[in-house]
Amino acid sequence: MRYSKIFTRSSKQFPKEEVSISSQLLIKGGFIDKVAAGIYTLLPFGLSVANKISQIIRDEMIKAGGQEVSMPGLIPKENWVATGRWSDLDVLFKTSGQDKKEYALGASHEEIVSPLAKKFTFSYKDLPFAIFQIQNKFRNELRAKSGILRTREFLMKDLYSFHADEADLDKYYDQMIDHYWRIFERVGIKDKTYLVYASGGTFSKFSHEFQTTTEAGEDEIYVCKKCSAGLNKEILQEAFKCPCCESVDYEVKKVIEVGNIFKIKTKYSEPFSLDFVDKDDKRQPVIMGCYGIGIQRLMGAVVEVSHDEKGIVWPQSIAPFKVYLIATPENKDEAEKLYKELIDKDIEVLYDDREVGIGEKFTDADLIGSPYRIVMSPRNNGKIELKRRSQQEPKILEKEELLKILS
Amino acid sequence: MRYSKIFTRSSKQFPKEEVSISSQLLIKGGFIDKVAAGIYTLLPFGLSVANKISQIIRDEMIKAGGQEVSMPGLIPKENWVATGRWSDLDVLFKTSGQDKKEYALGASHEEIVSPLAKKFTFSYKDLPFAIFQIQNKFRNELRAKSGILRTREFLMKDLYSFHADEADLDKYYDQMIDHYWRIFERVGIKDKTYLVYASGGTFSKFSHEFQTTTEAGEDEIYVCKKCSAGLNKEILQEAFKCPCCESVDYEVKKVIEVGNIFKIKTKYSEPFSLDFVDKDDKRQPVIMGCYGIGIQRLMGAVVEVSHDEKGIVWPQSIAPFKVYLIATPENKDEAEKLYKELIDKDIEVLYDDREVGIGEKFTDADLIGSPYRIVMSPRNNGKIELKRRSQQEPKILEKEELLKILS
Repeated sequence: MRYSKIFTRSSKQFPKEEVSISSQLLIKGGFIDKVAAGIYTLLPFGLSVANKISQIIRDEMIKAGGQEVSMPGLIPKENWVATGRWSDLDVLFKTSGQDKKEYALGASHEEIVSPLAKKFTFSYKDLPFAIFQIQNKFRNELRAKSGILRTREFLMKDLYSFHADEADLDKYYDQMIDHYWRIFERVGIKDKTYLVYASGGTFSKFSHEFQTTTEAGEDEIYVCKKCSAGLNKEILQEAFKCPCCESVDYEVKKVIEVGNIFKIKTKYSEPFSLDFVDKDDKRQPVIMGCYGIGIQRLMGAVVEVSHDEKGIVWPQSIAPFKVYLIATPENKDEAEKLYKELIDKDIEVLYDDREVGIGEKFTDADLIGSPYRIVMSPRNNGKIELKRRSQQEPKILEKEELLKILS
Repeated sequence: MRYSKIFTRSSKQFPKEEVSISSQLLIKGGFIDKVAAGIYTLLPFGLSVANKISQIIRDEMIKAGGQEVSMPGLIPKENWVATGRWSDLDVLFKTSGQDKKEYALGASHEEIVSPLAKKFTFSYKDLPFAIFQIQNKFRNELRAKSGILRTREFLMKDLYSFHADEADLDKYYDQMIDHYWRIFERVGIKDKTYLVYASGGTFSKFSHEFQTTTEAGEDEIYVCKKCSAGLNKEILQEAFKCPCCESVDYEVKKVIEVGNIFKIKTKYSEPFSLDFVDKDDKRQPVIMGCYGIGIQRLMGAVVEVSHDEKGIVWPQSIAPFKVYLIATPENKDEAEKLYKELIDKDIEVLYDDREVGIGEKFTDADLIGSPYRIVMSPRNNGKIELKRRSQQEPKILEKEELLKILS
């Protein structure tokens, strides 16, 4: 893509009102635009990153047997009343129709997925199955001060699994933990992420959060020095001993949550009479699990973990472009040629063909954070400079070598 | 995909409460699920169709120079107040935050896209450009009785173009008409679709609607017998003569709207001071166009146009599966083998491996409407039966011939 054709551009101003470094860098780099507190537009670069993250998650959810749907954001009041959340869930945005019918916007979708599953669940032979979507969630947060880490509207992958018994849920839950690790590995933050014991509410002993350590983390977790399991504060106060290995020796780490999984069991199946006939011809409630990941939050977490003083350092898997191409005016023709060759090889490239100074181009290359920067300049005597964003020193290469590395 | 693994199934009951045949067939076939009046979930088959339609539209919008973004559904009150639509637009769903801030859900996105464009538009050199998204719209309809043809929440592609002068808008508008024709051709309804003159509001003489003829059409248009231009009722009453060729001889046709395009000029740029410095160093308001297509409505329109008494007849471009595969118990092993061969060739196939009678499989094949049905049965003496959904007579083929036709 030619930068001159893109309607956005990086900002020279520093968005001081943003508290989190991830939102500052994403706004400065032209990935997102702030509409209001907790409400952002995904601009072309940001949408590209969000789509790549979504595709990695979708791929893992399909491997986990998930079937994709798209549920509505407008959810009728009666569905929320059935579960008690019309009055209990304080983050609901409520609205009403011209016909006086009341709705709340989907802060979560148990109230839609449970009656949906009921329509297709009759006997134990219909179980287990799993339904997921990647759709907007709306949360009426009292404060929204963490930039894209906590917003009032965001894309979320939510998967719901349906089982005949708890043993089957337990097995699926453990498989899902593996898929979550695989997702965090693919977006480049696995090494800094912990599986953390959290409260299971009234239905389960524990739920689990995936928490990624960053200096600017909004939460604290207690990491067991013996087994590396994490505990959140609530669990530490209740249990004191590590639920995994019974050690009592912890290290405190600042974190942001990047995923959570929950055995909700019959909490949402019972209100909707989501049940099935078991092998003994007895009616039983369906046992459920739910598994969430916020897309923009994960994008923000990656930036929190992977940036330097000059800008973002994207992992290749979710970078908007693999290559940022810069050329001096003397090398313009060669750059045009290389640009076309890269496109022919399906290498995603942002060609900075704007009429701005070369210094600005270098600054933007670092800010936007593509994994590779190419510079074509007379200084290189016909060769081409290739620098990894994560490294200091460039290499001077023949074009063939360069194309080999990038392919 | 194996039908036995899909959590949905077709319904034997006829959804009588649905008025439109498209919604009846889409519910019966397991494409969509009705949550409430005007609110539907896209189930796996329906999401697949919606994604294919979206991808065709995205492809044409990118060819038209569109840059994709994703704007929020929650739009602050002040944006709507700026354009007067907080009080004038009766289809707004309004809500408020815990912090008492008020919002309306995006029924349209001029109030977000105009201030966004302002951030990146300074001089005539920044123009023209075009921004689009495929995102949920929310419309507080008083009545929602046409099934998925008119809903309270739906995916919409909306593109907004930004120009330095009206001549440039006019040129782009005509190009967009070509892209719209290409979209309707690709989804198989071009032959039944008319470009219709409609009211341009206070800012333009005309806007245009794309209207597709169907027996169950909710609107009527007047088609000029001389030049095939369409007029809606309002324009007929005002103009009487055909705006295209001045003829006065019309034919009345029942239609549903599948797209509309509008020269909104400075209606939304002025309230947000979206202006630019022209070549003579003078400040001018940006001239805008907007161009919409509802995804679910287009899906419904295709079904209205393309079905028979047995079910849907999908055009191949947007069918959830190209092939529906049925086998008798005697041919199960052969069917498993063919299923794998089709997958290896990237041919989308729904293999009906459910433990149900063969009659039910035939019924579902016609209802779901994949372009091809394969039957493997001892009756065919080692050959395979291939039938197009749109034709009556099957062909009996050797496997090699069959794979050649499907590839």
